[in-house]
Amino acid sequence: MPIPEELIQFITREKKLLIATHINPEGDALGSALALAMALESMGKETIVYDRDPVPESYRFLPGHERFTTSLPSLNLGSLPLILLDCNEPGRAGIDAMVVPFSAVIDHHETEKEFGQIRWIEPRAAATGIMVHSLLKKLGVTITRDMATNLYTAIAIDTGTFRYSNVTSEVLRAAAELVDRGADPAAIAGGLYETWSKGRFQLLIGVLNTLEIIDTLAMTVATNEMFMRTGTSAEDTENFSNFPRMMSGITVSAFFRETEDGWKVSLRSKGDVNVAQIADRFRGGGHRNAAGYRVKGDLKKAKESLTKAVKSGGG
Amino acid sequence: MPIPEELIQFITREKKLLIATHINPEGDALGSALALAMALESMGKETIVYDRDPVPESYRFLPGHERFTTSLPSLNLGSLPLILLDCNEPGRAGIDAMVVPFSAVIDHHETEKEFGQIRWIEPRAAATGIMVHSLLKKLGVTITRDMATNLYTAIAIDTGTFRYSNVTSEVLRAAAELVDRGADPAAIAGGLYETWSKGRFQLLIGVLNTLEIIDTLAMTVATNEMFMRTGTSAEDTENFSNFPRMMSGITVSAFFRETEDGWKVSLRSKGDVNVAQIADRFRGGGHRNAAGYRVKGDLKKAKESLTKAVKSGGG
Repeated sequence: MPIPEELIQFITREKKLLIATHINPEGDALGSALALAMALESMGKETIVYDRDPVPESYRFLPGHERFTTSLPSLNLGSLPLILLDCNEPGRAGIDAMVVPFSAVIDHHETEKEFGQIRWIEPRAAATGIMVHSLLKKLGVTITRDMATNLYTAIAIDTGTFRYSNVTSEVLRAAAELVDRGADPAAIAGGLYETWSKGRFQLLIGVLNTLEIIDTLAMTVATNEMFMRTGTSAEDTENFSNFPRMMSGITVSAFFRETEDGWKVSLRSKGDVNVAQIADRFRGGGHRNAAGYRVKGDLKKAKESLTKAVKSGGG
Repeated sequence: MPIPEELIQFITREKKLLIATHINPEGDALGSALALAMALESMGKETIVYDRDPVPESYRFLPGHERFTTSLPSLNLGSLPLILLDCNEPGRAGIDAMVVPFSAVIDHHETEKEFGQIRWIEPRAAATGIMVHSLLKKLGVTITRDMATNLYTAIAIDTGTFRYSNVTSEVLRAAAELVDRGADPAAIAGGLYETWSKGRFQLLIGVLNTLEIIDTLAMTVATNEMFMRTGTSAEDTENFSNFPRMMSGITVSAFFRETEDGWKVSLRSKGDVNVAQIADRFRGGGHRNAAGYRVKGDLKKAKESLTKAVKSGGG
């Protein structure tokens, strides 16, 4: 993972930088941005850490999360160089490209955009956090416990705590180094996975009770009545669609969440089954193994139309 | 983690060994035993790999799992030295101590019995697989892909894929070395977590429906009737006790499984709560965050006695 020499020069040269990441930020975006900001400040620089959206409640265990600002001082912005993290075009961060004088991009997503004077993009990196970790080492920064916690979280969330196919021995060694610097794997996993409210857990049980299996398709449902009974809301259903994937015979898991005029359908698949193609039929979108769409009308019809689409192979 | 010199001498000296692990074996027991057997055979030795119970369906992805035998050639047993893995008394392996001429114990459990001429017990080791890994390195064995897969699985299951408080940088570095030797983290995680039968998933739903919360204690139950209805058995409940830990207010999760004359209770805890101490009160055992015991009588009484023990802090 060679780091562009001009990125090192740029960071070494600048005295004040804007660090920004994508809207609806998750662990890799947040942890990478916070660790980088802390590192640059330890080098005597000033940073502004920006995200258009606030840090989600579930990530407020990250040290330094309060550094994030959701508003930019527009007058001064014109003179601030930008480091864009975990995305590679300013639109994804809710920033107008026109106002940024100079930009460096650090990202592990496949890119189509030609944005940034300095572009360090590694689609094979498991997380942006891995890239920032090697950058900090290259810069000679002493990695503190807080930086280590942020970077370990970034890596943990983007590898499913070391369960996904992006896990290499390099990833595990980086994690080991961060533990040596003070990151606490159990505390971080606890922050990520063991902070459900009782209502959310009751909602999950209710959702699992709706399980219906048709061949290789598993369908589960959350109704407004269930949200009310458990004191929960739509955001509590994050990750619910993954549970039925645990069954060996299931290739597609569909989770139906009741909306104002119908259903939001989240699709998850295993292996080669492309749910983005299925979602596309219903004017939705996503990636091969994770996609979604919205549909009006009653649940029975919504299930029937999906069952038909899955049977015909989606394409 | 110093390895007793007499263990090295013993293994180097013997030509034929019996490797045995505990009844109702899980990933650490199975993976450790298989990797050790393969290693000893690569050193030109003969091994018998014994478990009283068959390898659970869910672990038949482990390379070499067919090496396990559930019957011992009793006539020859009197002359075979034993390596007891992932437990530290022969009763836990369903073996009569009287017939074993010489024994070496390799285990990471806390509750320790006075069995074995050679005893290597490391309660601070995350898994017996970690101990076997360092033993193989000490013996100078070339770790093959199959050994690496078995050891990685052992470590993965006993650390909840690197989520528990037993995860150290040493654990992560051992995992990295095993990946370098051919272990595939995503394939192993898939084998561990995405190969459930439909019956097992239905059983989980049934178990979650029994959830009862008393302060910080969560209790769930599997009855024989539930096993029959879903076509499952005791081995399908592995890991069930972990689910209620997802709730932020829960520090102890207890899973009650019906047995012939009572209940097998699996305890899981978060942080500093020591369930080994609680299990010890009921003549069970385990380690700080994962322990268990058996109790006779009806469920109501079993729940009451546990609730009382948890309230009084276990100690």
